[in-house]
Amino acid sequence: MFPCGHQVVLYSYYRSSCSWRVRIALAMKGVEYEYVPVHLVNDGGEQVPTLLIDGLTLTQSLPAIEYIDETRPGPAILPKDPKLRAQARTLAELINSGIQPLQNLSVLKVMGDNTANWAHSVITKGFDAFEKMVQKSAGTYCVGDEVTIADLCLIPQIANANRFKVDMSKYPTIVRIKEALETLPAFVAADSKRQPDTPEDQRA
Amino acid sequence: MFPCGHQVVLYSYYRSSCSWRVRIALAMKGVEYEYVPVHLVNDGGEQVPTLLIDGLTLTQSLPAIEYIDETRPGPAILPKDPKLRAQARTLAELINSGIQPLQNLSVLKVMGDNTANWAHSVITKGFDAFEKMVQKSAGTYCVGDEVTIADLCLIPQIANANRFKVDMSKYPTIVRIKEALETLPAFVAADSKRQPDTPEDQRA
Repeated sequence: MFPCGHQVVLYSYYRSSCSWRVRIALAMKGVEYEYVPVHLVNDGGEQVPTLLIDGLTLTQSLPAIEYIDETRPGPAILPKDPKLRAQARTLAELINSGIQPLQNLSVLKVMGDNTANWAHSVITKGFDAFEKMVQKSAGTYCVGDEVTIADLCLIPQIANANRFKVDMSKYPTIVRIKEALETLPAFVAADSKRQPDTPEDQRA
Repeated sequence: MFPCGHQVVLYSYYRSSCSWRVRIALAMKGVEYEYVPVHLVNDGGEQVPTLLIDGLTLTQSLPAIEYIDETRPGPAILPKDPKLRAQARTLAELINSGIQPLQNLSVLKVMGDNTANWAHSVITKGFDAFEKMVQKSAGTYCVGDEVTIADLCLIPQIANANRFKVDMSKYPTIVRIKEALETLPAFVAADSKRQPDTPEDQRA
């Protein structure tokens, strides 16, 4: 279907927040790709997301998004201005290295009875910092009025926050941005409720 | 000493690996800056590193390094070629989001008696993946023969590995790159053994 060497493949799990970020980037740029489902819980999950693109094997979501942005036409995911780009990347990293690794499966497994409390506290602490920071940079979205890499990280992290029953009413700016983002076609297409491996009872 | 608005300030802790990465970037570019010591253990440490630069407050090390690279003359820290850049960023993120957050103080505190084992296992698992990946991209350094953002992350992470007695003999490529890097002036200047807040008994 694709010419040899030009096929883009994404190893993904519908609910993995890092897979989800990359799906939004691919959808924003209109990149066609083959979706290979990997069951994060049953199969170990070290392999998601993995993006095969242009002969590269990219296993980290933010570098994969930056590569897609740099090499594919379509709306910019990183702002052109270095200061705005730094703000967008800082918000993205606050989630990518400041929240997500602390509430992923490998950590939760060793927390035992304390799992839900730990995840709740990590996300709350992270979103406290995110809300404070994003109030300074937000327009319609996290940084001004264009979608950036920060927004690609925010939406899947909110799904995790909901799973661990974090009180989102404390985060008015985050909630407002979420409501603006979730109507956009790329965010609709990439949603965890609409993937090939989404279980029937979790479909939109 | 600096013209108003042009002073660069780094809130840093000598042993914090994320502060250390930013110090290497500033040294590579020859950026003069004020070093403000923050004691990671006694003061809480949520505030390091913080880089004040050009009116921005950057609290995440990789975005701070990318900003320094984009706005300051001197040797490039990100390769110009998008594929090499993606490889360098992927290696950097493997440490930044895949290892460092899992062995930082907030996690170690809740591990109790299991702290040393946990840190040892997280770093070993991360370096197993890093060694395998870097074998494909390495020249003199992590990606080819120029220093990149991956090298800035690797050196401080090796110091953490040594602290938790990880057996580095399993990682011949990492060790070879380390030996090449540690003679470079920017890496010498940024070393944890040579900072204003390095305790006397840990000085080089």
